[in-house]
Amino acid sequence: MKILITDEVDSLLIRLLNKYNLEYELNLTDSSEKLLQVIQEFDGLIVRNRIKINSKFLYKSKNLKFIARYGSGMESFDIETAEKLGIQCFNSGEGNANAVGEHCLGLLLSLFHKIYYAANQVKNNIWEREKNRGIELENKIVGIIGYGHTGQAFAQKLKGFNCSILSYDKYKTGFSNKFVHEADLQMLYENCDIISLHVPFNQETKYLINDDFICKMKKPFYLLNTSRGGIVSNNDLVKGLKNKKIIGAGLDVIENENFKFNKINADLDFNYLLNCKNVIITPHIAGLSKESNKKLSKVLIHKILKLI
Amino acid sequence: MKILITDEVDSLLIRLLNKYNLEYELNLTDSSEKLLQVIQEFDGLIVRNRIKINSKFLYKSKNLKFIARYGSGMESFDIETAEKLGIQCFNSGEGNANAVGEHCLGLLLSLFHKIYYAANQVKNNIWEREKNRGIELENKIVGIIGYGHTGQAFAQKLKGFNCSILSYDKYKTGFSNKFVHEADLQMLYENCDIISLHVPFNQETKYLINDDFICKMKKPFYLLNTSRGGIVSNNDLVKGLKNKKIIGAGLDVIENENFKFNKINADLDFNYLLNCKNVIITPHIAGLSKESNKKLSKVLIHKILKLI
Repeated sequence: MKILITDEVDSLLIRLLNKYNLEYELNLTDSSEKLLQVIQEFDGLIVRNRIKINSKFLYKSKNLKFIARYGSGMESFDIETAEKLGIQCFNSGEGNANAVGEHCLGLLLSLFHKIYYAANQVKNNIWEREKNRGIELENKIVGIIGYGHTGQAFAQKLKGFNCSILSYDKYKTGFSNKFVHEADLQMLYENCDIISLHVPFNQETKYLINDDFICKMKKPFYLLNTSRGGIVSNNDLVKGLKNKKIIGAGLDVIENENFKFNKINADLDFNYLLNCKNVIITPHIAGLSKESNKKLSKVLIHKILKLI
Repeated sequence: MKILITDEVDSLLIRLLNKYNLEYELNLTDSSEKLLQVIQEFDGLIVRNRIKINSKFLYKSKNLKFIARYGSGMESFDIETAEKLGIQCFNSGEGNANAVGEHCLGLLLSLFHKIYYAANQVKNNIWEREKNRGIELENKIVGIIGYGHTGQAFAQKLKGFNCSILSYDKYKTGFSNKFVHEADLQMLYENCDIISLHVPFNQETKYLINDDFICKMKKPFYLLNTSRGGIVSNNDLVKGLKNKKIIGAGLDVIENENFKFNKINADLDFNYLLNCKNVIITPHIAGLSKESNKKLSKVLIHKILKLI
C-alpha cells in the first residue's frame, strides 16, 4: 500500500500514516500531467483541490484503489469514471462540518445584527446606533438545502434560536426530528426567510440559485452560501439584491474563485457584491479551522484503514 | 395618571398608552434642569438614557410613582434615593435580552471564524485562506458573569455548540440546569476560554475586568462585553491584548462612550483597540433590534398596568 498526497495536509495526518505503517509520498508541486508518469506506482491518493483528476488520469492509474478527499467537495475528480474503474472515492466532510455550521451562523448573525457593517463604521469614526438597528433570528423560518454533514451541523447551531427549520434534500428522506422538518422545495419557497446551501457542486446544482429560484421565493429573503460558488448565479444574485427580493447575502464561496479556490477573477458582479452593505464575503474559510484540520485527518485515516 | 416620556420610543408604546387610556406627554429635548419645573405634574416617567435623574430631580418629583426604563441599564438614575422616596424603578430588560444574546454570539463567531477580519481583506482584494483559519466554539468553556435576562439569553444561544457553560451571579443561586452550571469566580478563572459580561454598571462592577481579573485567568481567553463600557478597564484590556493573555475581544460597549451612548471620546487606548485585528467594536447596538423595540414596549406597558 503506497499513497500519494498532492496537497498540504495537517501534520496529524502524517503522524497517523506513520503510526499505521502506511507508506506515502508527498508531491505538492507537480501538475496532473506530470503525476501521470508516476501514478501507476500508487494504491491510494489523498487530495484537496490542487489537481484535477479527469478520466485520462484515472485510466492511467492502474493500481489506484481509492481517492480520499481531505475536505468535502469532490468536484475536482471524475467520480463516475473512477467508480467504473473500481476506484473508491470518499471525502471527509464529517471533519469540517462543524466549522462550516459555525461559520454559516456567524455570517448570518453578522448580517442580521449589522456587526460587520457597523464595526467598519466605528473603524471610520462613525458611531451610529439607530441606523444600525438589527433584526433578530428568533422565530424566523430557515430553509436548509442539502441535509448532509454541513446542513445538519448548521441546523444544530440553530438549536438555541427558536427558529423553524425546513430542510430539502433531493437524495434523503425520513430525517425529520424535533428541530428539523423535512420539506420539498415548494415549502421552502413559500415559507423561508433564510436559504442556506449545503449541497455538492455538480451539473444538478449548478446555478440552483438563479432568477427562477429567486422569483419563486414568496418573501424577500437572506441567502447563505458556504458550499460552492457555482451553485449561485452571481448575475441573478445581483439582480435579486437590486430589486430587494434578496435582503442580504453571506457568501463564503463565490463563482469568481478559480478551481483551486486560491484566487478571484473579479468582474462587474463581484465588484457590485463587494460594495453592497448587506453582503459579506469571506475567502472560502468556513471549513478551515484549527480543529477541522485534526478532525479531517482522523476521519480520513479511519476510512482508509477500513478499506484495506 | 400622567406620564412623561423623555426619549424616543417605538410607536407601539404610544399606541399601547392610548389603548389603555394612559395620559402622556413627550418631551425629547429639555434638560433635566428644565424638566424640574414641570416634573411635579407627572405620576410616571418613561426614560432611556437622555437625562440623568439625580437626587435633586427626585426630591422635586413630588407625585412620581415610578420610573420605567425603556431598555435595561438604570445607571442614569439614583435608584437608592428613588426607593427611599417610594418611587418604583424598573427596566424592561426582558424585551431586548434576546437581541443582546444573539449579538453577543455574533461577535464571538465573527472573532473565532475571522469573519470580520477576512471579509475586510476580501474588500481590499486580498483572498487569503490558510492565514484566516479560525477556531471552533464547540467544546469550549464559556463563563457568563451575571445570570439575568441577557446572561440567560446568551446561554440559550449556545445550546447547539456543545460548550460547557459556567455562570457566576453575585445575587443569584440555585439556577444550574442541563446547560448552565452555577459557579463562583474562582471556577471561572480556572476553566474559561471565554468571559462574557452581563451585569449592570455600578460601583461594584466598575472595572470588574482589570489587571487583577485578567491575571487570575489561568488560560488566555476571549472577552465579550455587551453590558456597559465602564465594567472593563480599557487600559488593562489593552495590556492584556499586548501580552496575549487576552486573545481577542468583542465589544458592543466601551469606556469611551459618553453617558448618552451617542458619542465616543477617543483616546490612545481606544485607537489601539480600533486597530487590533482581534478586536471588534460595534456601536452599542446589541439591544437594538426591530423586534426589541416592540418587545420593550409590551414589557413596559405590562409592568405599568400592574402598578396602577
